[in-house]
Amino acid sequence: MSQKNNETFFDDDDILFAEETPDKVTVTDGETWKLMIVDDEEEIHDITRLALEDFTFEDRELTYLSAYSGEEAKKLIRENSDTSVILLDVVMETEHSGLDVVEYIRKELKNSFVRIILRTGHPGQAPERKVITEYDINDYKQKTELTAKKLFSSVTTAIRSYRDLKTIEKNRQGLEEIIEASANIFKPQSFRMFTAGVLTWLTSILHPDDDLLRSRISAFVATQEKGEFIIISAIGSFSEHVRTPVLKAVPKAVARDLTCAIEQKQSVFSDNAYTGYFSSSIGSDNLIYLESPHNLDELDKRLIQIFAHNVIIALDNIYLNQEIVDTQKEVITTLGEVVENRSKETANHVLRVAEMSRVLALKAGIDEEEAEILRLAAPMHDVGKIGIPDSVLLKPGRLTSEEFELIKTHTLIGYNILKNSNRRIMKTAAFIALQHHERCDGNGYPQGLKKDDIHVFVRIVEIIDVFDALFHDRIYKKAWELDRILALFKEERGKHFDAHLVDLFLENLDEFLAINDAYPDDR
Amino acid sequence: MSQKNNETFFDDDDILFAEETPDKVTVTDGETWKLMIVDDEEEIHDITRLALEDFTFEDRELTYLSAYSGEEAKKLIRENSDTSVILLDVVMETEHSGLDVVEYIRKELKNSFVRIILRTGHPGQAPERKVITEYDINDYKQKTELTAKKLFSSVTTAIRSYRDLKTIEKNRQGLEEIIEASANIFKPQSFRMFTAGVLTWLTSILHPDDDLLRSRISAFVATQEKGEFIIISAIGSFSEHVRTPVLKAVPKAVARDLTCAIEQKQSVFSDNAYTGYFSSSIGSDNLIYLESPHNLDELDKRLIQIFAHNVIIALDNIYLNQEIVDTQKEVITTLGEVVENRSKETANHVLRVAEMSRVLALKAGIDEEEAEILRLAAPMHDVGKIGIPDSVLLKPGRLTSEEFELIKTHTLIGYNILKNSNRRIMKTAAFIALQHHERCDGNGYPQGLKKDDIHVFVRIVEIIDVFDALFHDRIYKKAWELDRILALFKEERGKHFDAHLVDLFLENLDEFLAINDAYPDDR
Repeated sequence: MSQKNNETFFDDDDILFAEETPDKVTVTDGETWKLMIVDDEEEIHDITRLALEDFTFEDRELTYLSAYSGEEAKKLIRENSDTSVILLDVVMETEHSGLDVVEYIRKELKNSFVRIILRTGHPGQAPERKVITEYDINDYKQKTELTAKKLFSSVTTAIRSYRDLKTIEKNRQGLEEIIEASANIFKPQSFRMFTAGVLTWLTSILHPDDDLLRSRISAFVATQEKGEFIIISAIGSFSEHVRTPVLKAVPKAVARDLTCAIEQKQSVFSDNAYTGYFSSSIGSDNLIYLESPHNLDELDKRLIQIFAHNVIIALDNIYLNQEIVDTQKEVITTLGEVVENRSKETANHVLRVAEMSRVLALKAGIDEEEAEILRLAAPMHDVGKIGIPDSVLLKPGRLTSEEFELIKTHTLIGYNILKNSNRRIMKTAAFIALQHHERCDGNGYPQGLKKDDIHVFVRIVEIIDVFDALFHDRIYKKAWELDRILALFKEERGKHFDAHLVDLFLENLDEFLAINDAYPDDR
Repeated sequence: MSQKNNETFFDDDDILFAEETPDKVTVTDGETWKLMIVDDEEEIHDITRLALEDFTFEDRELTYLSAYSGEEAKKLIRENSDTSVILLDVVMETEHSGLDVVEYIRKELKNSFVRIILRTGHPGQAPERKVITEYDINDYKQKTELTAKKLFSSVTTAIRSYRDLKTIEKNRQGLEEIIEASANIFKPQSFRMFTAGVLTWLTSILHPDDDLLRSRISAFVATQEKGEFIIISAIGSFSEHVRTPVLKAVPKAVARDLTCAIEQKQSVFSDNAYTGYFSSSIGSDNLIYLESPHNLDELDKRLIQIFAHNVIIALDNIYLNQEIVDTQKEVITTLGEVVENRSKETANHVLRVAEMSRVLALKAGIDEEEAEILRLAAPMHDVGKIGIPDSVLLKPGRLTSEEFELIKTHTLIGYNILKNSNRRIMKTAAFIALQHHERCDGNGYPQGLKKDDIHVFVRIVEIIDVFDALFHDRIYKKAWELDRILALFKEERGKHFDAHLVDLFLENLDEFLAINDAYPDDR
């Protein structure tokens, strides 16, 4: 290729097409570089477009924006914050209109990305060294020195510089999203909430600023259940397939990728998709599959990997937490069972009382967290029976009044066993143990409390415990017919039991009977 | 200021001192911008230095690096990756030496930060448009067009661009550190480990690449105990003050900042210090104080705030987890106590057996995590006694052989109560309940297992349980003298008890007696 050594202003050169392979941000189809021309002479706009007619950089063409005054330029850049380059005249409506625009962009809009090439026909108005030093511009050209070749060079290096800044900035934004995502995925939460969050965050990390692109991503999380991966959370085109085995939900080509990841127990990327394999030391193995309408570039892949690293740790935390919480539940249930076992009641009485108490609490408007505390505390209400001798506790016939006085002490014994703890569950269990034979009409024991002085948790447990005791065979009696039980509750409504809670219980009787069916007495 | 319109090559201009106030990265004292001159003509080096003699940008001067060939330049940039700008000749040892250097920097070293100004005296060898398009350079100048004023402009805009890239890059690195830090601070761990980690990570976030600067930061975490903030982890000059109340550990000026943060319950920055106040919904309030030898710039402050946000969440997680784990321990202890209470033994027997079993396990080389499982499982070993009638369990005199057969069943009853769980603690408790009356010589019950068939956890619990039973009064006997107990262990070494474990127990007797003192029988 021949090069002329001296060119005139906007002399035309051969256009060389970019041969670089972009190794940073893969370009999204149809995107362009926005170039803004700011000049009060219409002619300058025309010849600039002409000179850059065939310009491309990394296969993207230019889109031109035109302003004819400083004020117009300010409006235009405000509306087009993704402008790559501004070719900016200095003297327009005032002698320093262009310089005002620079200040406005950098200081008011705080846009430090757009590359500003100052292009002046009056260097005396904007002396080069002064302007270069005092204003945050990226190039200074006198119109007389700006040949078509020079313009091409300036715009090319400016766009390259803009691309570099944007690449790091996209990386930075992705990392910020990951940090926000991490804060969220590490919050204590259910496995289901966690997986749904992971998917939403993945789309934000890939497209922090673009709702439309986010919405075009399809993805799911699947977890291994009995040797098969089942989709448990999904977005986009997989939304329909929750609770479906993965291999039935995806096209054959995708199934091949998934099978590969499952067999090798490791994550794989294809051009536009990510399959993450998450092996857990405790708990199940999990898969994350994500598919984008665009190819994933190196930066996308890197951000996904960084996020995936935190997902693994968060997943282990969740499983570990679940294990501790489950153990806690089982120990409490065992404690309840041990006590009930002593009075020859069945183990499932404890589970039924726990579950039914939780449900009645929710019906009464108590929040999830509190209801869960009640569920954990309720099974311990009879713990004091441990202090009652066999001869009284297991006596088949009617108790003497001395024996009854002895039985009554199980409320205080239970309270004393539990009261020294500072733990919320234990403190709750302690007052339930103490009060669970009080009656709304004040005729209960040990303190003879009346309705509002009895904690609502206790009023709930009393209804549930009596219902369950009557509804099943006990060593000293046969199960009652349902009608007879309901008659009793209506009779004791507002006397033994809280009237409003009895109403709620009766209104939702079907749900309580279903819990009874789930934990039968035949084990 | 007057400006000449036509300058000759390296004509001297007035130097304008930078008047910008840097609002991005605050400059560290003594730092300079590294400018590399690559040219095979010595004269070019000299006049370049002369032309830029008084150059400063944001109060930092230039440091010059000189190379006289492409190969020298490659070596020099390898050793000075923090170079801001290269003024690069094209034709040196070969006609494209300079272009080779560009390829080497961008593709081999992957340094995309240094700004490259190509400066050629033979434009025919390196045609502008071709070079600009094909090589990742940032400016192209023919030597004939590069006046001193133009050189000043080119270097200024290049350094400005380098600064912008580095600012985002420093931000990006800080965010990557935060992500790695988050992964670590969210791992399940003790409060102490967590606080030590937070301090180390804070220094890495501020100085990802610089060990020396990291080592010059002093910081501590303090937690509220009985109304006073006590330092629990510290680095730098505060290292000596762990377990000291904060207000006694710091100079008066710092104490004022801390008092202010404590009173307002919020975080404050001063020029070179950060005081973070972390109020927790559960658990204690905490303070983080950090003091740097340099002023903290806006970016530093922002990174600290982002990290602090994750610290709050991690802290809540730790407190919440601690609450669950503590509850679990208390429920298990209560279960043990309930059973022991039935046989009229004291509650602290359970706590002593748990703690002593853990210590003996550690002495036997079992790891912390396993030893903790043993500690939680051990208190449940006698749970089967719940199934033994009062008449036998509480009989003061000698048991008949039928009664003894009945007592023996408590191992199986306990096993049956616990065996159905999948939880690790419960499964461990189940086999301990089953085997805890086996003997190493095979004369135990229910299965008559011999030494190696009895799980090491069981062999540990047996020694501890028998020791504690003999060492304290029981309903059916007085406490034994220590000498008599030791004689029994020596006699039963290798018969009832595991010989090696008995040796370990006796060697560390002092520690076990200390545990006994910590949980006396007088409650």
